[in-house]
Amino acid sequence: MELWFTEKHSPNIGLTLKIKRCIFHKKTSCQQLDILESLDYGKILLLDGLVMITERDEFVYHEMITHVPITAHPDPKSILIIGGGDGGTVRECLKHAGLERIDLVEIDGEVIDACKKFFPEVSQGLNDPKVKIRVEDGIKFIKGQHKNYDIIIIDSTDPIGPAVGLFEKTFYQDVFNALNTDGIVVTQSGSPFQSTETWLNIFKNLSSIFPKTSSYLAFIPTYPSGLWSFVLASKTAHPIKDMRYDYARQLGARTKYYNHAIHKSAFSLPNFLSTQLTSNGQTYIDHLHE
Amino acid sequence: MELWFTEKHSPNIGLTLKIKRCIFHKKTSCQQLDILESLDYGKILLLDGLVMITERDEFVYHEMITHVPITAHPDPKSILIIGGGDGGTVRECLKHAGLERIDLVEIDGEVIDACKKFFPEVSQGLNDPKVKIRVEDGIKFIKGQHKNYDIIIIDSTDPIGPAVGLFEKTFYQDVFNALNTDGIVVTQSGSPFQSTETWLNIFKNLSSIFPKTSSYLAFIPTYPSGLWSFVLASKTAHPIKDMRYDYARQLGARTKYYNHAIHKSAFSLPNFLSTQLTSNGQTYIDHLHE
Repeated sequence: MELWFTEKHSPNIGLTLKIKRCIFHKKTSCQQLDILESLDYGKILLLDGLVMITERDEFVYHEMITHVPITAHPDPKSILIIGGGDGGTVRECLKHAGLERIDLVEIDGEVIDACKKFFPEVSQGLNDPKVKIRVEDGIKFIKGQHKNYDIIIIDSTDPIGPAVGLFEKTFYQDVFNALNTDGIVVTQSGSPFQSTETWLNIFKNLSSIFPKTSSYLAFIPTYPSGLWSFVLASKTAHPIKDMRYDYARQLGARTKYYNHAIHKSAFSLPNFLSTQLTSNGQTYIDHLHE
Repeated sequence: MELWFTEKHSPNIGLTLKIKRCIFHKKTSCQQLDILESLDYGKILLLDGLVMITERDEFVYHEMITHVPITAHPDPKSILIIGGGDGGTVRECLKHAGLERIDLVEIDGEVIDACKKFFPEVSQGLNDPKVKIRVEDGIKFIKGQHKNYDIIIIDSTDPIGPAVGLFEKTFYQDVFNALNTDGIVVTQSGSPFQSTETWLNIFKNLSSIFPKTSSYLAFIPTYPSGLWSFVLASKTAHPIKDMRYDYARQLGARTKYYNHAIHKSAFSLPNFLSTQLTSNGQTYIDHLHE
C-alpha cells in the first residue's frame, strides 16, 4: 500500500507527503486531532486536517515565535503562551533562564496529552516547574489579566474553528491590558503569500492598539507556500534596534534557525508585502530600518 | 475531468497543482519541454518534468538572481547569462540602463522559441537591441572568453541532464577567467533545505577559486521546499558592504520582491545552514556581517 497525505493550501494547490503509518486519531471536544508518521518529515500533528508541526521543521516556527520577542524585550520575567499545547514554544522559552513564570493556556487538553505521548522532543518542557498549564479558553482567561505579563505569544491555529476569536480586535485590546508597560505580543499570522488579507488584518488590528507594530518572516516548508509570517506589537521596544545583541549571539549557539542576523533580517519584507504596509505615511522599510 | 500536475521534490514529497489545460509538449534535442496552465500559478514551464517558472512567482527568482550582483558591482557594463532562455533574467537586466552588453547563451533554442510564444511577459526583453542571443553550450562558449564580462549569471536547471557541467570546478575556473578584474558571478544553487549537499558543493567549488564567496536566499513557493539559494562569488566586491545604496533604493521602486533591505537580509542564513560554512576559521555570519 502507498499512503499519501495531502493538505490543500487552496482548492488548487496541495502538499503531498508519503506516510509510513497512522499513529493516532481522535475527535476531541474542540477539533479533529490526527498524528501521522511521514517518511521525510517524521511525525506530523494535524488539527482539523491541517499540519501543525512536523518533527523535521517545527524548530523554525517555535524558535522564531519565541526568541524574537524575548530578545527584543529588555528583561522579560513573565510570559503567557496562548495555544501552543504541543509544548514547542515552552521548550524554547526554557532556554531563557531569566524567565520566572511561563504560563500556557491551551483550550484543548487532548493536544497536550497527545504531544506528551507522541512528540517527547517537542513537549519535553511541559513538566518543568516554571511552567503552569491551564486548560481553558485563552480569550476568557486574558480578560482577567491586568499588567501581568512581559510577553504574550499567540501560538494558535489559523483563524478557523476554535481560534477565530484570537484574531479579533477586542482580544488584542485585552492582550494590551494584560501586558506590562514595556510588554510585547507576538502572533503567528499565516502565509502572507497565500493568505495576504489575513496577514494584513492582523497587522492593522494590532497597529490600531499598540504604538509599534511590525511583521517578520520565516521559512517553514510544510506550511502553505513555505513562507510564514508573525506580527510583533510592542508598547515601547523597537524589535530590531532594541534587540539585546550579546544575548542574541549567545542564544544563537543553542538554536537551529534563529541567530542575531536572522533576527534583524526576518523583518525585511519583499516589496509585494512591504508596499501594503505604511506607518504614519512612511513606507514600511523606512519606518522599520531607518 | 480533474487534472493535477505533481512534482516530486523527493520520492516522498510532492507539490501538486490543479491544471486548467495542457498548452505545449515537445521533446527538444536537449530535454522534454512542457507548458501547462494552472489555476493558481498561471502558466508553468517545465523542463524534464521540473517546474522552471510559473507566471505567478517567477519574479522572485529573476529579480534576486539579477539585481543582487548588479547592485553589488561598482559599475557593470557587460553581462553574460548562461541558460535563462525564458528571458526573465534579461528582462530584469534591462532595468539597468548602465548595462551596454547583455549576452545570453542558451543551449536549447526551443526554450527561447516556446517562451517567446507562451510567456510574453517573461520573454519581452529578448528582442531588445542590447541583447545578443547565442544558442550554444555555455561550457564551450566560456572557454573562449578572457576578461570580457563584469557579471556572469548562471541561470541554469539543477545539476541533472544538460546542466551537470555548469556545477563543476573547471567550469567555475573558466568563469573566473571570463570575468573582468572586479567581476562577480552568481549561480542558482538549489534548495539548501532539500539538497544541502548540492548547495554546499557549489559554495565550496566557487570559494576555492574566488576571493569572496557568499550565499543568499529567496522564497520561491513552487520550488522544492519553498526556500531557494544562490551563491555569489566576486573578485573584489563585498556583496553587502559594496551594495550601491541609493541605486538599490531607486531600483526598489520597479521591483516586486527585491529592495535594498532584502538585498542585505537575504545573506543572513539560518543556523542549520550558516554553521555548515566557515571562512578562514570565522563563522559565516561573522565573516559576512562584521
